[in-house]
Amino acid sequence: MSGTIAEFDLIRRYFAVHAPQHPYNPLGIGDDCALLNVPAGYQLAVTTDTMVENVHFFADVDPESLGHKLLAVNLSDLAAMGAEPFAVTLALTLPATDESWLQAFSRGFMALARQYGVDLVGGDTTSGPLTLSVQAMGVVPEGRALLRSGAQAGDAVYVTGQLGNAGLGLKIKQGYDCNRPDLALQCFNKPQPRIEQGLALRGIANACIDISDGLAADLGHILEQSGVGARLQWERLPLSAQVQEYVERSNDWRMPLTAGDDYELCFTVPADFAGQLPGGSIQVGTIEAEPGLRVERAGVTEIFEAKGYEHFS
Amino acid sequence: MSGTIAEFDLIRRYFAVHAPQHPYNPLGIGDDCALLNVPAGYQLAVTTDTMVENVHFFADVDPESLGHKLLAVNLSDLAAMGAEPFAVTLALTLPATDESWLQAFSRGFMALARQYGVDLVGGDTTSGPLTLSVQAMGVVPEGRALLRSGAQAGDAVYVTGQLGNAGLGLKIKQGYDCNRPDLALQCFNKPQPRIEQGLALRGIANACIDISDGLAADLGHILEQSGVGARLQWERLPLSAQVQEYVERSNDWRMPLTAGDDYELCFTVPADFAGQLPGGSIQVGTIEAEPGLRVERAGVTEIFEAKGYEHFS
Repeated sequence: MSGTIAEFDLIRRYFAVHAPQHPYNPLGIGDDCALLNVPAGYQLAVTTDTMVENVHFFADVDPESLGHKLLAVNLSDLAAMGAEPFAVTLALTLPATDESWLQAFSRGFMALARQYGVDLVGGDTTSGPLTLSVQAMGVVPEGRALLRSGAQAGDAVYVTGQLGNAGLGLKIKQGYDCNRPDLALQCFNKPQPRIEQGLALRGIANACIDISDGLAADLGHILEQSGVGARLQWERLPLSAQVQEYVERSNDWRMPLTAGDDYELCFTVPADFAGQLPGGSIQVGTIEAEPGLRVERAGVTEIFEAKGYEHFS
Repeated sequence: MSGTIAEFDLIRRYFAVHAPQHPYNPLGIGDDCALLNVPAGYQLAVTTDTMVENVHFFADVDPESLGHKLLAVNLSDLAAMGAEPFAVTLALTLPATDESWLQAFSRGFMALARQYGVDLVGGDTTSGPLTLSVQAMGVVPEGRALLRSGAQAGDAVYVTGQLGNAGLGLKIKQGYDCNRPDLALQCFNKPQPRIEQGLALRGIANACIDISDGLAADLGHILEQSGVGARLQWERLPLSAQVQEYVERSNDWRMPLTAGDDYELCFTVPADFAGQLPGGSIQVGTIEAEPGLRVERAGVTEIFEAKGYEHFS
């Protein structure tokens, strides 16, 4: 953190940075590094995600939503580990200092940060093409992080919330005519990280991931890293009325499995724990010993190619 | 860390990521988050710096040097805190997958990482304009981090290494004719973070910063955050023969004080500790109670405007 005066001013002015609030953050912004206190018996979970104009968001995006979403996608990775967030750093590359843009962007970012008691502890601002990179940090009791590698044959596969709303939101942005677009656009623009659900799954889930690239691709990571397979029942997928209508009109039944940006959690649990799951969890299938992803739909089983959104593919 | 297959492949292929080596990194790359063990009695120091094409480096930069420098500028911030590095994350935004570029870039990055026993624990790859962001993490015994805010009137002001070599390297890149350009270009392209010196200064230095924006600007941060001033003796500045020659030819005596990219440490110490400093430390001045930066040169004292490189200024 090179920390020129101008950087400080920019960050102070738009991100309303005062003394950090969380007891794990003993030092304010503005030194060479942030200092973090990780209490004994805990591990630090660290994640980073970058968003680039015209790749991850449209140039005409509402900057307040963008600030929210940039932080949300990072907090979502902490949720998927069962970690409790407390600190973030922000690397902002901006083509120019646009006051109203920065004001709205920081409003969205900081509102979500406050909601989860997360401090902005450091960052870097540079000029260049609009690129936004966050690193989020949280704590998890030692040995209790939710990994991708722990799924066992016989586990039930669950998801939180609904699938495909953000994918429908993208289609609406691209011209799809939906007569009740609000929910889908809200999910696409301002996803909610499932922090509470991730915390509630500690000691319960054998494996967990957040659904950023579509259920098929992200469950595919669990299957690959756990050395197992899965069978999903398409009819169990939690779909909004708008997504159901989209599927009926388009016959694009794969969309709720392949569309990205939902930021729900997908997790696997032994049958014993079915009664202890966070509210809103829906079972969508089962882990099987045989590798691969099988989707039952209308009485037919399809071998599913686990492909979501991939960069450079 | 969304972690698509393609991302894994890219990172695995070019960054030779195996199991992490450092005992503080219990989990390999490839889950939603990295997990870090911070031992009891230590704090985690965290820093982030971004480099953007045509802002921080030329488009024709040698990618191996770039990989080295990107990591070096981040490790330099840890050095300035007296922290011992052990983990980094890397957010790569690339316009395309250029195999030879990535190979050379990762060679430079990973060679420096191995030199300091640092593991690459996570990252994110996206497509877009070339933007490189690193977050580096290290540990420091609780309460012993070197802050910018601890300088006291009467402290001696020291620097490690030499000043202005990187600045001269930039001038050579811009056309300045130097008959022995190697040292300056080496300092500009492949700066060495002063990790060992930072560790040796724990319990000795009252304040410390790394010189990324020029001694005047960076010492200025110490002065501002410590509520003090300083007097420097220009004739004491450790300059290479090439920089001395540049100053004589150009009469640009401010260059060694204002040019960025040296990544030496500037620190202040009480007189008692003069015998315990890391080798190569040179006293360049003294902290004074009166705010402001005064530079004595050829018997004249000039009030120095503490200005280095600033973004958005």
